[in-house]
Amino acid sequence: MANSKFEYVKQFEQPDQLLPNTWVVVRIDGRGFTKFASKYEFEKPNDKRALDLMSAAARAVMSELPDITIAYGVSDEYSFVFHKTCTLFERRASKLVSTIVSTFTAYYVHLWSAHFPDSPLSPPLPSFDGRAVCYPSVQNLRDYMSWRQVDCHINNLYNTTFWALIQLGGIDATEAEKSLKGTYSADKNEILFSKFHINYNNEPEIFKKGSVVFRDYEPVEPGTHNIAHEVENLAEPVAQSKSQSEKDRKKRAKAAIVVEHLDIIKDEFWDRRPWLLSNKPGKIPKEP
Amino acid sequence: MANSKFEYVKQFEQPDQLLPNTWVVVRIDGRGFTKFASKYEFEKPNDKRALDLMSAAARAVMSELPDITIAYGVSDEYSFVFHKTCTLFERRASKLVSTIVSTFTAYYVHLWSAHFPDSPLSPPLPSFDGRAVCYPSVQNLRDYMSWRQVDCHINNLYNTTFWALIQLGGIDATEAEKSLKGTYSADKNEILFSKFHINYNNEPEIFKKGSVVFRDYEPVEPGTHNIAHEVENLAEPVAQSKSQSEKDRKKRAKAAIVVEHLDIIKDEFWDRRPWLLSNKPGKIPKEP
Amino acid sequence: MANSKFEYVKQFEQPDQLLPNTWVVVRIDGRGFTKFASKYEFEKPNDKRALDLMSAAARAVMSELPDITIAYGVSDEYSFVFHKTCTLFERRASKLVSTIVSTFTAYYVHLWSAHFPDSPLSPPLPSFDGRAVCYPSVQNLRDYMSWRQVDCHINNLYNTTFWALIQLGGIDATEAEKSLKGTYSADKNEILFSKFHINYNNEPEIFKKGSVVFRDYEPVEPGTHNIAHEVENLAEPVAQSKSQSEKDRKKRAKAAIVVEHLDIIKDEFWDRRPWLLSNKPGKIPKEP
Amino acid sequence: MANSKFEYVKQFEQPDQLLPNTWVVVRIDGRGFTKFASKYEFEKPNDKRALDLMSAAARAVMSELPDITIAYGVSDEYSFVFHKTCTLFERRASKLVSTIVSTFTAYYVHLWSAHFPDSPLSPPLPSFDGRAVCYPSVQNLRDYMSWRQVDCHINNLYNTTFWALIQLGGIDATEAEKSLKGTYSADKNEILFSKFHINYNNEPEIFKKGSVVFRDYEPVEPGTHNIAHEVENLAEPVAQSKSQSEKDRKKRAKAAIVVEHLDIIKDEFWDRRPWLLSNKPGKIPKEP
Repeated sequence: MANSKFEYVKQFEQPDQLLPNTWVVVRIDGRGFTKFASKYEFEKPNDKRALDLMSAAARAVMSELPDITIAYGVSDEYSFVFHKTCTLFERRASKLVSTIVSTFTAYYVHLWSAHFPDSPLSPPLPSFDGRAVCYPSVQNLRDYMSWRQVDCHINNLYNTTFWALIQLGGIDATEAEKSLKGTYSADKNEILFSKFHINYNNEPEIFKKGSVVFRDYEPVEPGTHNIAHEVENLAEPVAQSKSQSEKDRKKRAKAAIVVEHLDIIKDEFWDRRPWLLSNKPGKIPKEP
Repeated sequence: MANSKFEYVKQFEQPDQLLPNTWVVVRIDGRGFTKFASKYEFEKPNDKRALDLMSAAARAVMSELPDITIAYGVSDEYSFVFHKTCTLFERRASKLVSTIVSTFTAYYVHLWSAHFPDSPLSPPLPSFDGRAVCYPSVQNLRDYMSWRQVDCHINNLYNTTFWALIQLGGIDATEAEKSLKGTYSADKNEILFSKFHINYNNEPEIFKKGSVVFRDYEPVEPGTHNIAHEVENLAEPVAQSKSQSEKDRKKRAKAAIVVEHLDIIKDEFWDRRPWLLSNKPGKIPKEP
Repeated sequence: MANSKFEYVKQFEQPDQLLPNTWVVVRIDGRGFTKFASKYEFEKPNDKRALDLMSAAARAVMSELPDITIAYGVSDEYSFVFHKTCTLFERRASKLVSTIVSTFTAYYVHLWSAHFPDSPLSPPLPSFDGRAVCYPSVQNLRDYMSWRQVDCHINNLYNTTFWALIQLGGIDATEAEKSLKGTYSADKNEILFSKFHINYNNEPEIFKKGSVVFRDYEPVEPGTHNIAHEVENLAEPVAQSKSQSEKDRKKRAKAAIVVEHLDIIKDEFWDRRPWLLSNKPGKIPKEP
Repeated sequence: MANSKFEYVKQFEQPDQLLPNTWVVVRIDGRGFTKFASKYEFEKPNDKRALDLMSAAARAVMSELPDITIAYGVSDEYSFVFHKTCTLFERRASKLVSTIVSTFTAYYVHLWSAHFPDSPLSPPLPSFDGRAVCYPSVQNLRDYMSWRQVDCHINNLYNTTFWALIQLGGIDATEAEKSLKGTYSADKNEILFSKFHINYNNEPEIFKKGSVVFRDYEPVEPGTHNIAHEVENLAEPVAQSKSQSEKDRKKRAKAAIVVEHLDIIKDEFWDRRPWLLSNKPGKIPKEP
């Protein structure tokens, strides 16, 4: 039985390659996580176990997909960044998105019991959706990352105050919401401090800054060169020698993938870690 | 801290709605499953435990996403069909694909231990990629389904003969490959029968036909009406009354989601189950 | 000097093929035609010379692109329909749109002086923009055509009444607009008849119905078969024999391309001209 | 008669906005211009009248669409560049392409008689197709422009030698083609010089370099600043004050649109005309 009669249906597959020479961000989000969080009694306003599980899954994704240069996570979302010269899966959007979403989900489910030993998973299981977005310039990419981190800050300050009012102030959600309506950051800081003696600045960095995941090499002195300009001048997929690619691959495999809670809005983070934008592996730090 | 300065990055998100009034097929495939199968010592040519796990995950997907009308699986792939009037997630491709891939993966990992109790999963974990394709007409959709089932048949006949030659015939893979080169179906049937007394027709249906997953209502007498023509005349998303939608929803929730191993190429399968193309729930069968 | 160094820029060209087995409608619209019409003193509410020029350009487009099966025009817009099996230019959207827009514009400018002998064209010249839209089913296509013809009717009834109020009733545009606000069709018919003794039904068909352009073969008796169903069953680009294609090509070349002002909403128009949906040339009418 | 019943067909229009913050190049090409050139007996290897007509049409396009910053033409093709911050027509691809193609065609047909006074146009009329491509970085854009100019050079050297062999050398096309097969630039230069005493360097610039069309302001001293880096740092559509936009608009309207035949591969061209990349109008030159 020849299959040729039906094979014409392959013509209906439409190409979805992403524009070359642009940074590809795949952001995934938990589906229905409000309900999910309540089912498993996540702590409010932040559940460290849940955040650590997200980052553990993100680390696994980065480990399986070395083309990802950096990831940033907050709450039930994670953004993964492919370097603008990346040609993985010929830059096909559905392939990039589905691979990340699937790998992330697999680890999230698999690692669940290590993070929530007392709450076995049961259907409906946690799942994530995702999408890919292209950013043409380093500035666009950094603005995207800043956008997510500012969002983290805004939401965390709100949630911290909201739950303090409820958990410490003894009012209910409706009252808490009402008393926060129209307030500015300064007002919330003031409420926390004056009512509950909480200095927001002393809150854990993981809650205030979210989580940055990247391969760790030796940081460089900032200001020695303008990495962004160098990177903008890369106009096409870099044609590396095979031996160079192999060297890079090995260096990447050796580098530790770390989860940090740092400011990624200011220049310093990027200046000290030029490999994040250049995609050239740095120097592996000596063991102490 | 206002976020408005960075929010412009949202403008880079490009729409990816699929053309209305077309059947949407999301096909997912195991990533690197040759290696994965060998790591967990899947039986050759078919591992029933692995196929059952795939179908269990597919059933869970269909249960969580009632908009899917039918799914078809073979080996490490599964195709999920959304009715042409479906407007789930505004028909956004990345949302449809990532949700299916993620849900499928979650159940695959979660249900693994029930199907492979003696082989605990360890990294790298199983994962799947996926893509969405639009088919404008019923004929296109049925040809797609036929394409996958013919593929199942061709591959299974080949694999059955190939592994018989190795497992029963005692030759190695290279020799087996050589002796099958250029053969037709009839030749392979002949080899199986004359050399190994295997009548291919008696092989299990799950291996020969793959797995069809659908909601089960009472079959109808075929030939009473032309369902395909009726469906082609549906030109736009059906505006149902709220109470009708609610009724449909309840009927769907009551219907059992079954996994069968039937011929989906011939008309009979579709004629007897008009709800697959019409998207109108049928009659719930009486309990025996 | 080798060009290879720069040739990588071709990789940035992204594919834009339209989904197979769907009807492709390219609609073009005059750019800034309110101003253009006033510059060349088009008659109000309809300028027959301008409409005839549009249709003459549309006929020329259909003559140069035999893949177009039917076109429909009203005011400064024209819609061109490619049969769902059409594979012209590999169905690339930009190629289809730009070719139609360019050919139409060329003839519009070239034929201008024949239709407006006393008003030579001067910059800024007339121009058109266009876009392609896919329609999966015959019903969708017919609904598109109906949409345009209903629009023609609604606008023409409004404009006829509006300009009667001004030209015959002696009121100004603001007053005319005010007196039509909130009126229904019946009201406008009534105004025309009672105030100006105009029976809208007696207005010229070209104004009420717009213009349909198609290749003319001998009409058939309606009701002999269901052409829409036959066409829906066409699932893929038809693989014709070369000699059949050649015969079709010759028949098409012989057929007169006519401009008519008919109802295209009712079935009769389509039933009597099965070639419009089937794309099989009909019988060339005998010369009288 | 309400139109609502059919209006659902508008949902089938799919968005086609081009990625923000990228340079948009719309390239148009003559359709069937080999045949067209022969019908109107274009001179070989270059017809100055035809090239001037192309550039006259391109100038008209730039004059009607001030968002275009530069255009480059060779033979029967022209490329138009929109600045990466441009938001014209919301960056819809079909709108940008069809508007340029239509405007270009209108002027090409309209201006024909001024350039070919002795050859009136007759059907089939000249027409053009077009497509839009996005380039993320200044380097990509300049490489695109270089690609076209190198192509111009390669083709012109070939054609000049080819036609010299025929027109001056008295051999036929087949022989000429054969004698050029596998030759390098140096070989062709040598053939021209030794056989026909033609120094290719002395050929007219319009043939060797093609035509660059741009708004002319006072050139600046190169090297005073790095315009490319400044432009890369523009990350989003520039929010200008209304009065600034108005000033820019007026300056642009005052600037002469010139057609030059310059090297656009080397830095100098771009360094001396920073407005081409910055999109900020320069200083209007004093009249002499």
